[in-house]
Amino acid sequence: MTKSKLKIIPLGGLSEIGKNMMVLEYENDIIIIDVGLMFPEEEMMGIDLVIPDISYLQDKKDKIRGIIITHGHEDHIGAIPYILPQLNVPVYSTKLTNGLISVKLKEQKALASADLRVVPTGGKVTLGKFRVEFLPVCHSIPDAAGFIINTPVGTIVHSGDFKVDYTPIGGKPTDLSRLAQVSRQGVLLLLSDSTYAELPGYTPSERAVGETFDRVIAEAPGRVIIATFSSLISRVQQIIDAAEKHSRRVCVVGHNMVEIVRMALDLGYLKASPKTLVRIEEMKKIPHDRIVFVTTGTQGEPTSALVRMANRDHRHLQVIPGDTVVISATPIPGNEAVVARTIDNLFKQGAQVLYNNIAPVHVHGHASQEELKLLLNIVKPKFFLPIHGEYRHLCLHAKLAQSVGIPKNNTFVMEDGDVLELDSNNAKITGRIPSSNVYVDGLSVGNIDNVVLRDRQMLARDGIVIVIIAINRQTGKLVGKPDIVSRGFIDPQDSSDLLEKSRELVMQVLDHSGVRPAEWSFVNAKVRDTLYKFYYEQTKRHPMILPFMVKV
Amino acid sequence: MTKSKLKIIPLGGLSEIGKNMMVLEYENDIIIIDVGLMFPEEEMMGIDLVIPDISYLQDKKDKIRGIIITHGHEDHIGAIPYILPQLNVPVYSTKLTNGLISVKLKEQKALASADLRVVPTGGKVTLGKFRVEFLPVCHSIPDAAGFIINTPVGTIVHSGDFKVDYTPIGGKPTDLSRLAQVSRQGVLLLLSDSTYAELPGYTPSERAVGETFDRVIAEAPGRVIIATFSSLISRVQQIIDAAEKHSRRVCVVGHNMVEIVRMALDLGYLKASPKTLVRIEEMKKIPHDRIVFVTTGTQGEPTSALVRMANRDHRHLQVIPGDTVVISATPIPGNEAVVARTIDNLFKQGAQVLYNNIAPVHVHGHASQEELKLLLNIVKPKFFLPIHGEYRHLCLHAKLAQSVGIPKNNTFVMEDGDVLELDSNNAKITGRIPSSNVYVDGLSVGNIDNVVLRDRQMLARDGIVIVIIAINRQTGKLVGKPDIVSRGFIDPQDSSDLLEKSRELVMQVLDHSGVRPAEWSFVNAKVRDTLYKFYYEQTKRHPMILPFMVKV
Repeated sequence: MTKSKLKIIPLGGLSEIGKNMMVLEYENDIIIIDVGLMFPEEEMMGIDLVIPDISYLQDKKDKIRGIIITHGHEDHIGAIPYILPQLNVPVYSTKLTNGLISVKLKEQKALASADLRVVPTGGKVTLGKFRVEFLPVCHSIPDAAGFIINTPVGTIVHSGDFKVDYTPIGGKPTDLSRLAQVSRQGVLLLLSDSTYAELPGYTPSERAVGETFDRVIAEAPGRVIIATFSSLISRVQQIIDAAEKHSRRVCVVGHNMVEIVRMALDLGYLKASPKTLVRIEEMKKIPHDRIVFVTTGTQGEPTSALVRMANRDHRHLQVIPGDTVVISATPIPGNEAVVARTIDNLFKQGAQVLYNNIAPVHVHGHASQEELKLLLNIVKPKFFLPIHGEYRHLCLHAKLAQSVGIPKNNTFVMEDGDVLELDSNNAKITGRIPSSNVYVDGLSVGNIDNVVLRDRQMLARDGIVIVIIAINRQTGKLVGKPDIVSRGFIDPQDSSDLLEKSRELVMQVLDHSGVRPAEWSFVNAKVRDTLYKFYYEQTKRHPMILPFMVKV
Repeated sequence: MTKSKLKIIPLGGLSEIGKNMMVLEYENDIIIIDVGLMFPEEEMMGIDLVIPDISYLQDKKDKIRGIIITHGHEDHIGAIPYILPQLNVPVYSTKLTNGLISVKLKEQKALASADLRVVPTGGKVTLGKFRVEFLPVCHSIPDAAGFIINTPVGTIVHSGDFKVDYTPIGGKPTDLSRLAQVSRQGVLLLLSDSTYAELPGYTPSERAVGETFDRVIAEAPGRVIIATFSSLISRVQQIIDAAEKHSRRVCVVGHNMVEIVRMALDLGYLKASPKTLVRIEEMKKIPHDRIVFVTTGTQGEPTSALVRMANRDHRHLQVIPGDTVVISATPIPGNEAVVARTIDNLFKQGAQVLYNNIAPVHVHGHASQEELKLLLNIVKPKFFLPIHGEYRHLCLHAKLAQSVGIPKNNTFVMEDGDVLELDSNNAKITGRIPSSNVYVDGLSVGNIDNVVLRDRQMLARDGIVIVIIAINRQTGKLVGKPDIVSRGFIDPQDSSDLLEKSRELVMQVLDHSGVRPAEWSFVNAKVRDTLYKFYYEQTKRHPMILPFMVKV
């Protein structure tokens, strides 16, 4: 009798950053780790969000024993509102993560039907043949977890997103001694965070940022405005601590930030003296050198409070000379240009701006190379699967693993949809399941296909030309001149000649004989080709050309 | 009698990176420093290039005594083919810069009519009341110059793009002793490069990259493919040197790179033994460990050789396991995401990829903070104007100047179009001239206005819906059902219901009475509003809606 194999299938999070989601399948049991989203890349025009493709799970829903979540960041929980209603299984997470998932489901009016279960860090749950222990790990959000998963083929360690911070703020250090204990019984497979596999050395402690805040708030002549991620609760705590030390009040600005701060205070993840936090309406009475604002907008999001302030477009807050603005984050790849513009605009208002290029205002939440090697050395896995990173990060992490003694053949650099099959002795990539991007655009999930995106790209590049051709129903002959209208192509006022000439061209194409209905698609193609060539010759642009025939 | 003032007007290069161009005007004499271009930002949909707005010069052409160019990078010479034919004045530059301008004008078939004049570094030209000395400065291209400009109100020093590299490759160190000499006679105004005003310390010597190349080429098991900027001639020299040392041949790939290498060899700015350089057709005979390829594509440009290789789309070159690829550049802000994708794709082909995050494969060509302070200390100007940078860089550079003793009131952070007026005692920003972006899109220069760009942005986000309404010419009543077609909005196959419903909505809007021609614009607006609301309710998207009425 052949023993069954364990399948590990990343549905997201490997070849592209974000939208982390992974399937573990053994016989009739499936568990899912994380259900994250990704923000769209530049060429995904008009797309709001990207979520994992769960078509592999469609006919296996009754096998799914539960979803386990590492921590409450968007790239790990963001797709839950879209995917949970389709799967309808329990979601296991730690207390703060559970709070963040609840906020998210409430916004989408999907909280009532969700089965959310809190697991304490260090706690265990049994899901079919999987026994999952929630291991405390340190990351840039409290209550983050890794997993020690007992499976019929052996023990798997999943790092979650982690760093090794011995002096974390409001969280627990990564539990290395528990891992050492597990390691002594043998670990079959380690899955470990590759986000910062490029970075040599050790990641500094979150505490380093607190020292900067303390100095900035002590020295600022006027108001201090600090922008950070709303989920970076430890960062908010350090702002509150520094403000209290220097007798300043703290005002939280921005809907999402207010929601999360309230929840974190309720759950005990944030601590503030009752007098510290004030609402924005009360700020007018307080002198400028007694105020700290906390807000979002570090990624240059157009509707965020910080960007509105930078553009003199915020209802309550105007940046003025004497203000000190701190951007306590680094731009997520792709956002560099909009973040830079926000900084420029803040400088133009006369603010003093501190950002990561010029001051130690941010440390990130992921392990650097020495920490990654430390984890590999403690866990000593037989097989190694780098996760959470783009392809180059996975390759570099695999090389690190090889440098500490994991054989090259035991290291697997996978892409989304690859299937890794394991038993207690062997591991092998055996196939690939379909796994593409599912786009969320407005209310629509998934039915944005590539044709729509290609059209948007074409429209964005050179615009559109619409040609209305009236044809006599009986004779098939052209009635009047064709009507030609453009949008996003050329300035119509400067180019009436060009449009007039193209009307004549269309008339020539149609002129010599009448058009019978059967010939319409032929004539349509001919009009398109003629105009395509003509416009390219005249302008070196390729607008989309859309002819319509109206029978008169 | 009031003495005349000198006007200094940046037409580009201050509030946005690139397209450097500056006007110096005294009575009846104008000189122009640099005529650069900028590559478009993300939201400038479909735009190829951005060049400075010279409307200020339109009625002053007879005053312009000449254009002086600091060095041969795109952001300093790139707009010459578009602007020189309008101004028709001599262009003064050093030998290599002149060669690069010639290559550029030749491509645009504008070389014959241009009056290009070579000035040796250290040489002087008199242009009306301005006497300009070309000062050798060190930058990431040989033959770069700064300027010492004698004017009737005092001496001006313009740094060009510079760094302080005591061991440059194929260029001269920045001539600090000449500056010290000038400084003793008093400098009225310093204009200095702010690009890296964020960076503490000193910029490393270009030689540091040579050491990396030497090590990489010595250790590589197979082919080495190095991508860099084609204008980075010193980098190409270092590749040739390292290849020759380790008995490898060098093959230059890519049209632009081949052109520039040929020109640099001809002018003596590149040196190679006759056997070193081979053509791509000859490479098949040479063993893999005896080859180095040099190419472009460090910015992820879709048609570049490197990106084609990464996508398995190059005619001659396929990346294979065993190859070592070196990306000897950093991404220009805004290009980070495409560069990252190129690196990922190269890793997927099995190459070993070295790039700036993980290896010392690039140093930049601009002064860091300590070098900027050094220049300020040597030149000791009365007034200071930071140039070449985005607004935040100018602010930080101004603060650096204040830290070495320039009074705050003598420091000017300007934006494009600001007018600085100077005499020998005073300097003041006195006004602002119109200065906007001029867009080059295909063959068209300048007649892309903001309406066209806004349309493209709208089309890119949610696409377009076209409504064709046939109206009886006599009765004004609707004939048949309206025709509705969308592009880039939703997948029509999934959404025939939605489109069908919107046809009925349009019929309801038009139903109750006939439409008289005078009412058409009213009906048009009503159709648009109705559909706008309906589509937003149904999809949370806002496509552009374009109704047409055809009279039947």
